[in-house]
Amino acid sequence: MSIIKYQKNPIISISQVKPSRPDFEVVGVFNAGTATMNDEIVLLLRISERPINTDKTCVLAAVYDKNTDDLITMKFDKSDENYSFDDSRIISSGEQTYLTSISHLRVAKSKNGYDFEIEDKPALFPQNEYEAFGIEDPRIIKIDDDYYITFASSSYCGVVTELAKTKDFKHFERLGNIFAPDNKDVVIFPDKIGGMHYALHRPSTSALGKPEMWIASSPDLVSWGGHKRIAALRDGKFDDGRLGAGAVPIKTEEGWLEIYHGATKDNCYCLGAMLLDLEEPWKVLKRSDEPLVEPSETYEKSGFFGNVVFSCGLIQSGDFIKIYYGASDESIAVVDMKIDDILNNLK
Amino acid sequence: MSIIKYQKNPIISISQVKPSRPDFEVVGVFNAGTATMNDEIVLLLRISERPINTDKTCVLAAVYDKNTDDLITMKFDKSDENYSFDDSRIISSGEQTYLTSISHLRVAKSKNGYDFEIEDKPALFPQNEYEAFGIEDPRIIKIDDDYYITFASSSYCGVVTELAKTKDFKHFERLGNIFAPDNKDVVIFPDKIGGMHYALHRPSTSALGKPEMWIASSPDLVSWGGHKRIAALRDGKFDDGRLGAGAVPIKTEEGWLEIYHGATKDNCYCLGAMLLDLEEPWKVLKRSDEPLVEPSETYEKSGFFGNVVFSCGLIQSGDFIKIYYGASDESIAVVDMKIDDILNNLK
Repeated sequence: MSIIKYQKNPIISISQVKPSRPDFEVVGVFNAGTATMNDEIVLLLRISERPINTDKTCVLAAVYDKNTDDLITMKFDKSDENYSFDDSRIISSGEQTYLTSISHLRVAKSKNGYDFEIEDKPALFPQNEYEAFGIEDPRIIKIDDDYYITFASSSYCGVVTELAKTKDFKHFERLGNIFAPDNKDVVIFPDKIGGMHYALHRPSTSALGKPEMWIASSPDLVSWGGHKRIAALRDGKFDDGRLGAGAVPIKTEEGWLEIYHGATKDNCYCLGAMLLDLEEPWKVLKRSDEPLVEPSETYEKSGFFGNVVFSCGLIQSGDFIKIYYGASDESIAVVDMKIDDILNNLK
Repeated sequence: MSIIKYQKNPIISISQVKPSRPDFEVVGVFNAGTATMNDEIVLLLRISERPINTDKTCVLAAVYDKNTDDLITMKFDKSDENYSFDDSRIISSGEQTYLTSISHLRVAKSKNGYDFEIEDKPALFPQNEYEAFGIEDPRIIKIDDDYYITFASSSYCGVVTELAKTKDFKHFERLGNIFAPDNKDVVIFPDKIGGMHYALHRPSTSALGKPEMWIASSPDLVSWGGHKRIAALRDGKFDDGRLGAGAVPIKTEEGWLEIYHGATKDNCYCLGAMLLDLEEPWKVLKRSDEPLVEPSETYEKSGFFGNVVFSCGLIQSGDFIKIYYGASDESIAVVDMKIDDILNNLK
C-alpha cells in the first residue's frame, strides 16, 4: 500500500502558534478537526498551553473558574506527597486529577492543504464549568449550511462531549453536552442513515468495561441513545489497549470507511481503518490487521507525549484522502492515501 | 420528623424467594422498583443469586453467555494471585472484574403494601451481552397504558442503563441501551416538563469526575442529551462519597421531591431528599442536611453488604409515601412518611 507521509511534516508546529495570552506558552498543536469552506481547507486545531513557569520546584495548572469567568493558575509543590507528578500530562491525588496543560480550539486555513495560516485568537475557549480543564479533539460535519463540531470537555465533572455549530468558523453556538462523562472521540456520521443520525463514541468505564468503540443514534443531534459496542480490543494487536473513532467516516460503495485510533497497553497510538455496513453502521465488516499509520518519524516518536499518531479528520478529494493527524500530542502532520488502497488492505 | 420504619421489617427476605434454578441460591432480594396496577402495589424486585458452592477453595461467578444463550459458571481458585477476593461482591484482576452474584428482576404484588406475594419465575432475566453480569435496580414510571422500566445492566462492556416497557408485568419489551457506560441510577420523571422527558442519572467517570447526580432530557425516552451535573458530593456529610437518584420524583406544589441515596467514603448508604424546580428540574432548590433514613436496625447494618439503605421506588397515597428500600443488599424494608414532614425538613 502506498502511504505517503508528507515530506515537510510536521505541517504545523508549536513555534507557529501564538499563545492565547502573554503569560502562557504553547506546548501542543494537534488533533485537528477538518472541513472545507469557500475552496479552502479549514483545520480546527487543538492548541494546548500552560502557564510559563520558571520555578522548577512546582507544577502549575491553569483551570477555568466560573466565578471569575477566567482562567486561574493553581500551583502544586513537587515535594507535596499528596500528589503524583509521574505522568507529565497530569497532576494526581487520590481525590482529584488536574491537567498540566489546558486546550482550546483555533482555526487555520489553507488553499493547498499543506501550508496553513493560523489565526491569532482562539475560536472556542473554555467558558463553562464542564470545560474547566480544557476542550479537546474536535470533529466536524456539515449539514446544509451549518458545520457541527463535537469536542471533548474536561473538568471536575469528568470528560463530556459537547456539540457546537457555526456557519463561518467565526461565530459559534454551543448546543450542550451530548454525551455524559466519561465519553470522548465522538464522531457524527455526515449523513443520516434510515432517518437517524449516528455517532461513534468512546465511553471510559470505571470498573467492568474497557475503552472500546460504541455507536449511538439520534433524532436531533443533541439526544443520543441505542448505545451498542461495535469494536472491542484485540489481544496482541495495535489496538489491544484502547480504541476510538478518529476522522468522520466517508461513504464508499463497500461501506462507511472509518479511520480510527488504536493504542497498545503501553500507549503507542496508531491509526487503523474499519469498514462499517452502509445501512447498519453498527456492523463492522472489515478492520485493519496492522496499523495504517504508525509512529516512525522523529516527530511522531518524541514530543509532548511520544509515540502517538491520532486523527480527528481527513479531507476527501475524489479517490484520495489527506489524513491530518496529531503527532506526539505536539504537532500536526498529514498523510496522503488512496481510498482503494485502504479498502483493499482490510481483513 | 415522624419516620416510621415498619415494625415487621424486613418485609421481604431471601428465604421467601425461590431461586431461578435448582443449582443456585438466592443471596439478596432488594432495590425494588414500584408501581400500582389494578389496585395492587407491584414491586419489581432485584434478586441476586449465585451458584451453590461447596468447595471453599474457590469462588464461582455465573455469567450470561451469548453463544449458548444461557448462564455459564466460571470458577476462580482463591489461591490464584492474579485475582483479588477482598471485596465479597467482586472478583477482580487488573484486566477484568467479575461479580460473585448475578441479579435478575422479579414481580411481587400486594394489596396492603406490606405483605407481598412473590412470583416463582423471573420477569426480566439476563439475555444479551450487555446483561452478562446481571440486571439491577429497576425504576418504573407509567405513561398512558405503558409502564417504562429503567435498569442497570453489567457486563464486560461496563454498566449501561436499559429501558424496557410492559403493560401487565408479564410481557416485557426491551427498548435498548439508553445511557452509555458507566451509568446507573437512571430515574425518569413521571411527566414531561416543557415538552421534554427528563431523567436523573449517575455516570461513573474513570479519572477526573466523581460519582454525582446528573440530569438529561429526551424527546422520545430512548435518546438522551443536554447532560448537566445537578448535585455534587458534600464534604463531611452523608453524601461525601457518592450520590445518585433513588425513587421516581413526586410532584409537590413546592417542586419535584426526589428521594435519593448518598454514601460516605466508607460506603455507608443513606437516603436523603432534594427538591427540584418544577419547570427547570436541573435546579436543586433544597437538599437534606442530614440523612432521611439511615442504617440503624440489624437488617440495615448487616447482611450481604451491610450499612446500606437504598431505594428505587415509593408509593404515594395522598399526603403520605411508603418508601421501599433495600437493606444491606439483602432484604426489602419499608418506611412510611408524610410528604410535608420531608419538605419541612429540607434546607
